[in-house]
Amino acid sequence: MMTVTLTSYLEEKITLVEQQLPLALEEAGVPERLYESMKYSLMAGGKRLRPILVLAVLEALGKPAERGIPYAVALEMIHTYSLIHDDLPAMDDDDLRRGKPTNHKMFDEATAILAGDALLTRAFAHIAQSYLSHSEVNTATAVKLIAELGKRAGATGMVGGQMADIQGEGRQLTLDELEYIHHHKTGDLLVAALLGGGYLAEANDEQLASLHTYGVSIGLAFQIQDDILNVEGDAATLGKAVGSDAEKQKATYPSLLGMDASRDRLHRLVADAKDTLTRAGIANSALHLLADYVVSRNK
Amino acid sequence: MMTVTLTSYLEEKITLVEQQLPLALEEAGVPERLYESMKYSLMAGGKRLRPILVLAVLEALGKPAERGIPYAVALEMIHTYSLIHDDLPAMDDDDLRRGKPTNHKMFDEATAILAGDALLTRAFAHIAQSYLSHSEVNTATAVKLIAELGKRAGATGMVGGQMADIQGEGRQLTLDELEYIHHHKTGDLLVAALLGGGYLAEANDEQLASLHTYGVSIGLAFQIQDDILNVEGDAATLGKAVGSDAEKQKATYPSLLGMDASRDRLHRLVADAKDTLTRAGIANSALHLLADYVVSRNK
Repeated sequence: MMTVTLTSYLEEKITLVEQQLPLALEEAGVPERLYESMKYSLMAGGKRLRPILVLAVLEALGKPAERGIPYAVALEMIHTYSLIHDDLPAMDDDDLRRGKPTNHKMFDEATAILAGDALLTRAFAHIAQSYLSHSEVNTATAVKLIAELGKRAGATGMVGGQMADIQGEGRQLTLDELEYIHHHKTGDLLVAALLGGGYLAEANDEQLASLHTYGVSIGLAFQIQDDILNVEGDAATLGKAVGSDAEKQKATYPSLLGMDASRDRLHRLVADAKDTLTRAGIANSALHLLADYVVSRNK
Repeated sequence: MMTVTLTSYLEEKITLVEQQLPLALEEAGVPERLYESMKYSLMAGGKRLRPILVLAVLEALGKPAERGIPYAVALEMIHTYSLIHDDLPAMDDDDLRRGKPTNHKMFDEATAILAGDALLTRAFAHIAQSYLSHSEVNTATAVKLIAELGKRAGATGMVGGQMADIQGEGRQLTLDELEYIHHHKTGDLLVAALLGGGYLAEANDEQLASLHTYGVSIGLAFQIQDDILNVEGDAATLGKAVGSDAEKQKATYPSLLGMDASRDRLHRLVADAKDTLTRAGIANSALHLLADYVVSRNK
């Protein structure tokens, strides 16, 4: 029953987000190849987890989800740009993403670099343009959203995490080093989604603190599940190769802690994520189901 | 006398901007190599034209230049990121920039891509953080600055211009195509500097329109002078090779119009730039001297 509910919730939100994403891209005055490249990766599917978290926070706090759409879309643009750049030959050198050619394979490297740059830039412009005169969101909140997103997406956040990940390649990482990478590379953008949703919902400090904790916990849990799926997932379902981490001797939770301890940590993190929300008075929300989804997902 | 005045004006502003730039980079929590790479390119010299324009607009309109510093610094971060990415092997493949190794030569390609991404992200975060609670600049103005900068720096602006430039390589461009590239690749960020300075100075619509025209004019003029210097400049002064455009059969003003017509157009644009300011009541400002500087500069 819970699974059915979550599945239909996710489907509904994914449909909404995927309707909004192309509307947020400007086409007029953009060189066609650049526009096509941006759209190709933005519309290449995916879980749309970051935008859904924004909408779910607003709903959990009793506010209309609509006001979160520009911020939600911006987060997905930033997530997409990071995938395009991470896939480049100079970075992870991946040919496939979600079963489709990566951006630089479909277009070329120069176009992929520029499409990433343009998506990152558009994310901030879209937030600013959308909330410049908005009936429900004031400009002070818009500036807070941009400051938070900029902090979490940049050198102190996601980009820093990617740098540490690249520097760690081919080295035996400690658990602390691995968690630094995950906290920043994956966790920070999830936290930006949750705190941004909180700002938009005018959450109080206790609620913001619990959304922060929830984000950090499901961020790590998400990564542990990714590592587990790389060991025992199904390549066809995942749309990417399985066993590639072990092949590359990449540091993962299973490689550092073993499978059983990784599963234990995963379940504890998900429990913590739900507990912190409940303690802050956020009960029975889709956020609870989303935390469970992190563990139950098979792709 | 005018030259002496402008030289000391530029020196004073460059000193101010170069003091502020490293302060705007966060170091704590950033992987050292990423921080060093960002700082290397940000502090690698240059004319600092975009930040100086912001400060000059504020002064020309009788407002304190200090309030423009965060926006000025953000513009220079965006300009710097665009140079780092443009120099990459997949793009222009340059080994030297201002007589020093380009970022990917000094570090490596992955680091250069990430340093560019982080500088771009930091630019928006820095504007938002700096103006979130500022005694002279309200949050509505901050949002306008971010919207304008995002529009001018992204797919409809600078990134679009770079894409068109890459697509035009090895093709004989028309003058219209060449001007599309320059308007966006160079002009748009100058316009963002001028309009942003105008917003910060609470300029009226006539003043904003004239700042816009001024920006478009000096942007093109700047590019024509670049093309001329590539034909007859001094390699040592420029810090880069001369004659490279002709060697690459690159479309330039001299190649399309000839040297005499290029010089005529350059001088007419500079005269237009100064006239539009004067007509809007902005007289005797450093902006007039800066327009002349575009023509007189030898690097």
